[in-house]
Amino acid sequence: MNKVKIGIIGAGRIGKFHIDNISQLDEMFEIVAVADAFSTELESLKARYHIKNVYKNYTEILSDSDVDAVLICSPTDTHAQIAIEAAKAKKQIFLEKPIDHDINRIKEVIKEVEKNNVKLQVGFNRRFDHNFKTIQQQITDNKIGKLQLVKVTSRDPEPPSADYIKSSGGLFMDMTIHDFDMVRYLAQSEVVAVEVFGGNLVNDEIKQAGDIDTAVINLRFANGALGQIDNCRAAAYGYDQRAEVLGNKGQVIAYNDQKSNTELYTAEGVEKEVLPHFFLDRYKDAYRDEFKEFYQAISEDRKPSVNETDGLKAVEIAKACQMSFKEHKEVKIQN
Amino acid sequence: MNKVKIGIIGAGRIGKFHIDNISQLDEMFEIVAVADAFSTELESLKARYHIKNVYKNYTEILSDSDVDAVLICSPTDTHAQIAIEAAKAKKQIFLEKPIDHDINRIKEVIKEVEKNNVKLQVGFNRRFDHNFKTIQQQITDNKIGKLQLVKVTSRDPEPPSADYIKSSGGLFMDMTIHDFDMVRYLAQSEVVAVEVFGGNLVNDEIKQAGDIDTAVINLRFANGALGQIDNCRAAAYGYDQRAEVLGNKGQVIAYNDQKSNTELYTAEGVEKEVLPHFFLDRYKDAYRDEFKEFYQAISEDRKPSVNETDGLKAVEIAKACQMSFKEHKEVKIQN
Amino acid sequence: MNKVKIGIIGAGRIGKFHIDNISQLDEMFEIVAVADAFSTELESLKARYHIKNVYKNYTEILSDSDVDAVLICSPTDTHAQIAIEAAKAKKQIFLEKPIDHDINRIKEVIKEVEKNNVKLQVGFNRRFDHNFKTIQQQITDNKIGKLQLVKVTSRDPEPPSADYIKSSGGLFMDMTIHDFDMVRYLAQSEVVAVEVFGGNLVNDEIKQAGDIDTAVINLRFANGALGQIDNCRAAAYGYDQRAEVLGNKGQVIAYNDQKSNTELYTAEGVEKEVLPHFFLDRYKDAYRDEFKEFYQAISEDRKPSVNETDGLKAVEIAKACQMSFKEHKEVKIQN
Amino acid sequence: MNKVKIGIIGAGRIGKFHIDNISQLDEMFEIVAVADAFSTELESLKARYHIKNVYKNYTEILSDSDVDAVLICSPTDTHAQIAIEAAKAKKQIFLEKPIDHDINRIKEVIKEVEKNNVKLQVGFNRRFDHNFKTIQQQITDNKIGKLQLVKVTSRDPEPPSADYIKSSGGLFMDMTIHDFDMVRYLAQSEVVAVEVFGGNLVNDEIKQAGDIDTAVINLRFANGALGQIDNCRAAAYGYDQRAEVLGNKGQVIAYNDQKSNTELYTAEGVEKEVLPHFFLDRYKDAYRDEFKEFYQAISEDRKPSVNETDGLKAVEIAKACQMSFKEHKEVKIQN
Repeated sequence: MNKVKIGIIGAGRIGKFHIDNISQLDEMFEIVAVADAFSTELESLKARYHIKNVYKNYTEILSDSDVDAVLICSPTDTHAQIAIEAAKAKKQIFLEKPIDHDINRIKEVIKEVEKNNVKLQVGFNRRFDHNFKTIQQQITDNKIGKLQLVKVTSRDPEPPSADYIKSSGGLFMDMTIHDFDMVRYLAQSEVVAVEVFGGNLVNDEIKQAGDIDTAVINLRFANGALGQIDNCRAAAYGYDQRAEVLGNKGQVIAYNDQKSNTELYTAEGVEKEVLPHFFLDRYKDAYRDEFKEFYQAISEDRKPSVNETDGLKAVEIAKACQMSFKEHKEVKIQN
Repeated sequence: MNKVKIGIIGAGRIGKFHIDNISQLDEMFEIVAVADAFSTELESLKARYHIKNVYKNYTEILSDSDVDAVLICSPTDTHAQIAIEAAKAKKQIFLEKPIDHDINRIKEVIKEVEKNNVKLQVGFNRRFDHNFKTIQQQITDNKIGKLQLVKVTSRDPEPPSADYIKSSGGLFMDMTIHDFDMVRYLAQSEVVAVEVFGGNLVNDEIKQAGDIDTAVINLRFANGALGQIDNCRAAAYGYDQRAEVLGNKGQVIAYNDQKSNTELYTAEGVEKEVLPHFFLDRYKDAYRDEFKEFYQAISEDRKPSVNETDGLKAVEIAKACQMSFKEHKEVKIQN
Repeated sequence: MNKVKIGIIGAGRIGKFHIDNISQLDEMFEIVAVADAFSTELESLKARYHIKNVYKNYTEILSDSDVDAVLICSPTDTHAQIAIEAAKAKKQIFLEKPIDHDINRIKEVIKEVEKNNVKLQVGFNRRFDHNFKTIQQQITDNKIGKLQLVKVTSRDPEPPSADYIKSSGGLFMDMTIHDFDMVRYLAQSEVVAVEVFGGNLVNDEIKQAGDIDTAVINLRFANGALGQIDNCRAAAYGYDQRAEVLGNKGQVIAYNDQKSNTELYTAEGVEKEVLPHFFLDRYKDAYRDEFKEFYQAISEDRKPSVNETDGLKAVEIAKACQMSFKEHKEVKIQN
Repeated sequence: MNKVKIGIIGAGRIGKFHIDNISQLDEMFEIVAVADAFSTELESLKARYHIKNVYKNYTEILSDSDVDAVLICSPTDTHAQIAIEAAKAKKQIFLEKPIDHDINRIKEVIKEVEKNNVKLQVGFNRRFDHNFKTIQQQITDNKIGKLQLVKVTSRDPEPPSADYIKSSGGLFMDMTIHDFDMVRYLAQSEVVAVEVFGGNLVNDEIKQAGDIDTAVINLRFANGALGQIDNCRAAAYGYDQRAEVLGNKGQVIAYNDQKSNTELYTAEGVEKEVLPHFFLDRYKDAYRDEFKEFYQAISEDRKPSVNETDGLKAVEIAKACQMSFKEHKEVKIQN
């Protein structure tokens, strides 16, 4: 197959990170355009990455017949609109999560994607992490038998700003959404019910912004398995990303990575290295590998392994968690 | 202090295990009597452990003025009655868990214990385990700061018989009760609310016996921290006993023990040793060390660190879990 | 079989430790006598462990027809003499290492043992350690194929006194002797050549006492495999006891034990627990299990798995190391 | 500083690997020329990496005034000649190890480098590995005090072809040379004496090619510390690369990396992931990071941290090992 000519919409922190990654996949992609309404770095990006065109307005990318695919990493509230327009323009779509906070809006995106017969991949990059991918493969290979428990721990090293919190959609929609996708990926089954306890244990700013910073979630899956997620906006020791799955034949655990596999032995004890600081560091390879999947899906003319349905389901679970937290009871999810 | 002269009521599997352990604490205890209505091994126990008297009827132990303390490891439904009689007879009491399934009955025991000013220790042996004791000490030493999350994983290697299940009081009262004590021990705060999902994933016999075999539990503590427990009656890889606690300064984790600290490297991967099979193996030292605490409490004339209140609280949480499972909602606990 | 009636010769630190261990193997052994020329604790040992007779003079044990076996843990320079007398008295013999520093003297012991057809077990307790036993079993089970490399690390937490050093026989005879036995146990082949570098890196006292405190040793085995030992009299982080073996199909590693399987995560890193402090702590179970082997060997009327030949071989390797250190060259060992 | 314009001499496996790495360091380097007398891929390399000129003859690179630096990854026997010519042409030099098998020839290279005042970095990439770099830093930061023991384990997953062996210079010059550099890097002191045992345990082809496949080496350092290296041409479980250093205050250990930090628990035991297969995989980041150091050294006008002296020392130790193996005795090294 020829290289996929990709246009990137949104050149903020994550957009630039994607540009750098995609530029190293030069056998698969050619970055032909970048659009950002506010960036002051368009010209330097153009020069550094040998990009043909840079634009203020993303519609110029959509109308460029040279563009095969778009990567949408603009602000969340523009995702759905741009995705719909991109689908109409027959562009393959890679979309940062979440598709939207509104379920009906997501369904409109899905409708348009199907109607125009384009691919849509959602940026649940953690599925491509070496640890999580390994245990999912072991589950698929029936190493642990019928699933009984699926557990995910996901904690950030430090809380975001109060400003970020306010526009984030809340803990479940902004942070746990990755874990909702992860439990579905590992359980290979849909979530049918949730129960939530949430708390404010990190700092007052998050509380004042009307959000919680810590949560524990019970889950039930369609296949009968149970699950647990725990989240916290601040873990003093670093970015904590783990999962484990129990089946009737065994268990798989994905531990954290560490900066080095070394130990220091002194009279005080044995000291191992700290964890990678945060997501750009921890999921460096996963961020690149998700674009390999996007390329493969396009070249094989099939749905990406993380597609619009996955984008929808994660938001549905987040909504159910919001309700369970509010109403102090189990909330069921239709699938 | 002189040795504590102890009489043992109940010489079933766990009773004999305790006899062997206590006999090795010969600087602290002298086993002066054993009573069991059904055992056929009383004479051989007498000979092997140099025990003065063996009885069919436990009341002979209670009326023996030579006896300072009793260990009650008879069937659960006799615990409260014997404990009350033992308190009236001014014996120090070591009682296997649970005190009773009925909260009012437990309160009667507590009343009688207080009235007669005797000690009562409950057999929550896991508090004396080297791993859990270590992380509890680190929490107490403020190594991880203010608590945010307390998590316990507790899974048996294989399910008990259907007969056992029927008289067990159910998963929460029989199995999770240890974990309820563990989260209180680690959180150093009372549980104020629970939410439960339960399931039947292990075998049909447990279901037919009217019980669940797998559960996930959300907890909230009086100090604001949140918690999670997961249980399963069968883990193919062995007896899984772990805990972790997150605070605002760090995290402590108690992993499983393994039979040896060895690894086998082959082309297939790296193989570590299996876990200790079950509780008598895993908590061998803890079963001995809980009697050191009993001895210390008596000799220092103070309440044991695991006393009647701990026995009551664990049952209260179990009851709340039963209700949450039934009613699909959060259940609050008064403390 | 009846219990083995054992008499203990030498009631110093290690002697008392053995008495306590053997007393807990009360299905196998009955301690009927203890002899020590200098101990002031004989009467209290007699009372505590219900021992029939205590003596100043060990010959009273040898002439006691009630005694089946003797445990010799007197000073090293008396080992051979007492062992020879014990053999003549037809007692089964458990002997602390080394049998003697003089190879001809060891051969006299062996001759007398064979002539009188008694068992002799040498106290190489580490063979009974859970870690080393596990990897040796894996090697025996052909999990790693034909052996290529055998490595042992053995370091003490702190150096002994200069006085101890002076009468110790030197690093190789006193400390490395355990490792010589361990490499033979793991390699299942005899050592045919050694090369040694030694140094004084710990403190001046050891140097002034005419000994080295640190050594690295190359070994060659009869089966062609190569080996390495490293020793140090002081490791600030504790008692370091590891081994690893490479075969053409894989590798086995025996790591250190730790006081608990816990980790503390903070911003500074991940802290695991310290190692067990020293040998009585680290090899607690092995010290007991070596007596189970002694009992089994007697009851099955066979040579103990660690016998007089093993006692001889370890001393022969120690002698070769002393020569290699002195002459800066490879020293061959006849087998 | 401007980008360093680099010309690459030798486009075999390692040369192409370097080209790909250096192309990703596009803020530091511009690859302006590649020369290889035999490669059939020059044109495709030129196109893929936007390289101005490709040549059959490396002298065209040396005479190109546009070239600031050369990377020499041609066959070993051409290293010294090309390095001397490059120094005369005032090019900065990055040279794959070893500089040469002949010590006098290496000294000629050093003389020319000094005379022309150019930098020379040797490709001991392992110094830039995250694990080894971490423990070296901890040593430098005095976390373990005065050094006592330095140990390196280095084993290949599978032996090279007999043809490769024949022209390799032998185990010490070809394989152990990396470990000689590593022990110097960790010990921060020169090797003053070695003792070697070698063996043929892997396959007959290596023996027939006149080389050994397995070796254990004792080392003594100028600072008094002792050391050990073990090597094997075949480890069935993968590429084994570890180091540990003991000081009087503690110990540091660099373990192997694994493909993922996951564990599979079944009734058979706990299975961790396999090791990275071989050096291009294991040292991927180190191969890139060594060029960052080359760039830094040039831009700061200082000697690279791994320079011509390091190239010389490693070969001197290899020569001493060859002699010790032959003469069965300690061989001293003048520094």
